[in-house]
Amino acid sequence: MRTQFIHQFSYTPYAETGGRVVSIQSPATVANMVCGFDVLGFAVTDPYDEMHIRFTDTPGVTIVNLDAYDLPTQPEQNVAGAALLAMLDEVAEPIGLEVSIFKHIKPGSGVGSSAASAAGAVVAANRLFNDRFSKSDLVRFAMNGEKVASGVKHADNIAPCIYGGVTLIRSIFPLDIVELSAPPLYVTLVHPQIEVRTADARGILKQQVLLKDAIRQWGNIAGLVAGLLQGDYALIGRSLEDVLIEPVRSILIPGFADIKQQSREAGALGGGISGSGPSIFMLSKDEATAKDVEAAMHGIYEKLGLDHHTYVTTINHQGVKFIN
Amino acid sequence: MRTQFIHQFSYTPYAETGGRVVSIQSPATVANMVCGFDVLGFAVTDPYDEMHIRFTDTPGVTIVNLDAYDLPTQPEQNVAGAALLAMLDEVAEPIGLEVSIFKHIKPGSGVGSSAASAAGAVVAANRLFNDRFSKSDLVRFAMNGEKVASGVKHADNIAPCIYGGVTLIRSIFPLDIVELSAPPLYVTLVHPQIEVRTADARGILKQQVLLKDAIRQWGNIAGLVAGLLQGDYALIGRSLEDVLIEPVRSILIPGFADIKQQSREAGALGGGISGSGPSIFMLSKDEATAKDVEAAMHGIYEKLGLDHHTYVTTINHQGVKFIN
Repeated sequence: MRTQFIHQFSYTPYAETGGRVVSIQSPATVANMVCGFDVLGFAVTDPYDEMHIRFTDTPGVTIVNLDAYDLPTQPEQNVAGAALLAMLDEVAEPIGLEVSIFKHIKPGSGVGSSAASAAGAVVAANRLFNDRFSKSDLVRFAMNGEKVASGVKHADNIAPCIYGGVTLIRSIFPLDIVELSAPPLYVTLVHPQIEVRTADARGILKQQVLLKDAIRQWGNIAGLVAGLLQGDYALIGRSLEDVLIEPVRSILIPGFADIKQQSREAGALGGGISGSGPSIFMLSKDEATAKDVEAAMHGIYEKLGLDHHTYVTTINHQGVKFIN
Repeated sequence: MRTQFIHQFSYTPYAETGGRVVSIQSPATVANMVCGFDVLGFAVTDPYDEMHIRFTDTPGVTIVNLDAYDLPTQPEQNVAGAALLAMLDEVAEPIGLEVSIFKHIKPGSGVGSSAASAAGAVVAANRLFNDRFSKSDLVRFAMNGEKVASGVKHADNIAPCIYGGVTLIRSIFPLDIVELSAPPLYVTLVHPQIEVRTADARGILKQQVLLKDAIRQWGNIAGLVAGLLQGDYALIGRSLEDVLIEPVRSILIPGFADIKQQSREAGALGGGISGSGPSIFMLSKDEATAKDVEAAMHGIYEKLGLDHHTYVTTINHQGVKFIN
C-alpha cells in the first residue's frame, strides 16, 4: 500500500496561555549523501516535525508527545530532552522548559528523525533565550540527542537541520561545519516500511578498508563538493558513487539495486541510502524528473508488495523554521 | 650549501632550420596536496622545463637532451618519448618528431619532473598537429610517460601540468578531470638533496587503512575543495591535514616535522610532502609569508647540513606555456 505524507495534525498548544511560546518546523535530513559517509548531509523541505516550547515554573525539561509514536518522556531518554538538558547545563539559572512535539518524521526511517527532534528543540529554546547561543553551540547540544538515539555523537543530520542546505562536517572534534552552496535540486525520498537499526547498519561495516577504495571515495567526495559549489549537475551525478558503504549496507534494503537503476533511467542524477537506511534518496534537476523517479520507486515496491512512503521535495536552505 | 634556482641555459634550437618549431615551458607540479592523495595536484610557476619540438623526416620519435641529466634517449624508455609514441599511435600517417629537452626540474625531486617532460612533449606536438587532440587526450598520452617513470599510469601531476591551476582526478578509469578555481596562493618549495624513489614511497604504504582515518581524510579533502572554491584561506589551512599517508612517508624526509611546524609558525596556511617526496611544499596567502617560510626551511636544513633548493612561487593557472 502506498501512503502519502499528510499533515494529520497541526495546532499551536499553549495558545491560551500568557507565556511566550516558540513554534518551529524541524526538517528531515539526508546524511552521508552517498560518497560523504559521516561528513555530508542536507536538509529537505518535507517532511518536518512540529515543535512548541515555553518556559515553565518547574526547573528541568518536560516532554509532551502530541503524536502517537509513544517516545520516552523522561528527558534523559528523549532525544529532544537530552539536547535541552545539555543546553541548560550551560545556563546558570534554574530554568524550566516544556517542549511539545508532533513528529511527522517516522523514527527509524533514516531521514534524521532524531536529529529533527534534537535540533528543533535547541533552536526553539535558543529563541526563548534571545539567541544567546551560536549555531555551532546548538549543534553541540543537539549531538547529545543523537547520542541517546544511536549511542554516537554525530552531526551529519544535526548540522544541515540547523544550518539548512548542504553541510560538511569536516571534523567533529573539534567541531568544524562548512556550509556548501548547491544549485536547485529536487529530492525524491522513499521509505520502505522495514526496520534497519542504526546500530546494525553501523555494525556490519568493516573497520578496515582498502586504500584504493578509500582513494576512489575521496575522489568522489571532492567531485561532489566541486559539483555542488560549481553548479555542475553532470559532475554531481558522476560523483554520487559509493564503493565502500553502499555495497555492504544496501543488502539490508529490499529492492535497492532496482531503485537505483530505474531512478537513473528515469533521469535522476544519482542517489543512494539516506543515512543508515532504510530510506533511499535520489537527486534530480527538475520536479518532473523527481516525480518520474517517485513513480519508478513506487512501481518497484508495489511489485515487491512492500508498504512505503514517498516524498518529492527540494533541498531546504533554511533549516529549522520559526512559525510564529 | 643552499643553491638557488637559475636558468643556466636557454636557447631555441632549430632557429636556423626552415621547419616549424614549437617551443614551450612545462611547469613543475605538486601532487597529492596533503589530503588529496592520488587525486589532487597543482602547477607552479617555477621551476619549469624547456622543450622544443619539430617534424623530422625520420618516422618515430627522436630525443635530444640539452641538459646534463643523461636521461635515456631511446623513446620507449624516455618519459617524453613514451608519451609521444602513444600520441603517434593515434596518428594514421608515419610521422617523425624530434624533441629537444632542457630539464630544469631535477628528476626525482618530487615536483613532477617526469610529468613536465611527458605533458610538455604532447602539448607541444599537438600544436604541430594543429591542436587535433583534446586536453583529455593529451593527459591520456602523457600518462604513458608516467608509466615509464614510476610503473604506474597516474595523472595527478600530468593533469595540472596540462590544464594549469588545481586539478582533481575524480577517476582515472574512465578519466575524469575537474578544474578547481583557487584564490591567490604563494607556494614555497624545498627540495632536500636526498633520493626518495617513488616506488619505495609507494611500497611503504599500507594497502588497508582504518575506516575512521579514511573518513577524517575525506572530510579534509571535502574541506580543501570547498576552501579553494570559496576562497576561504582559513578553511584551506584547517583542511591541509593528512592522517594516512604523511605519517608513513614523512619518516623518509629528514627534518619534515620541524619544517612543517616552523612553516606554520612563520604563517603558512599549511602544506606537506610534494608528490612522494622528498620535496616539501607550503602554501601562504602572500609573498612575504612565503619568503619567511623559505627562510625557516633554509634554517632547518642548514642546521642539518643538508644541501637543498628552495623556490618561492605561485600557483600557475596556465599550465604548459608556448614561448613562440
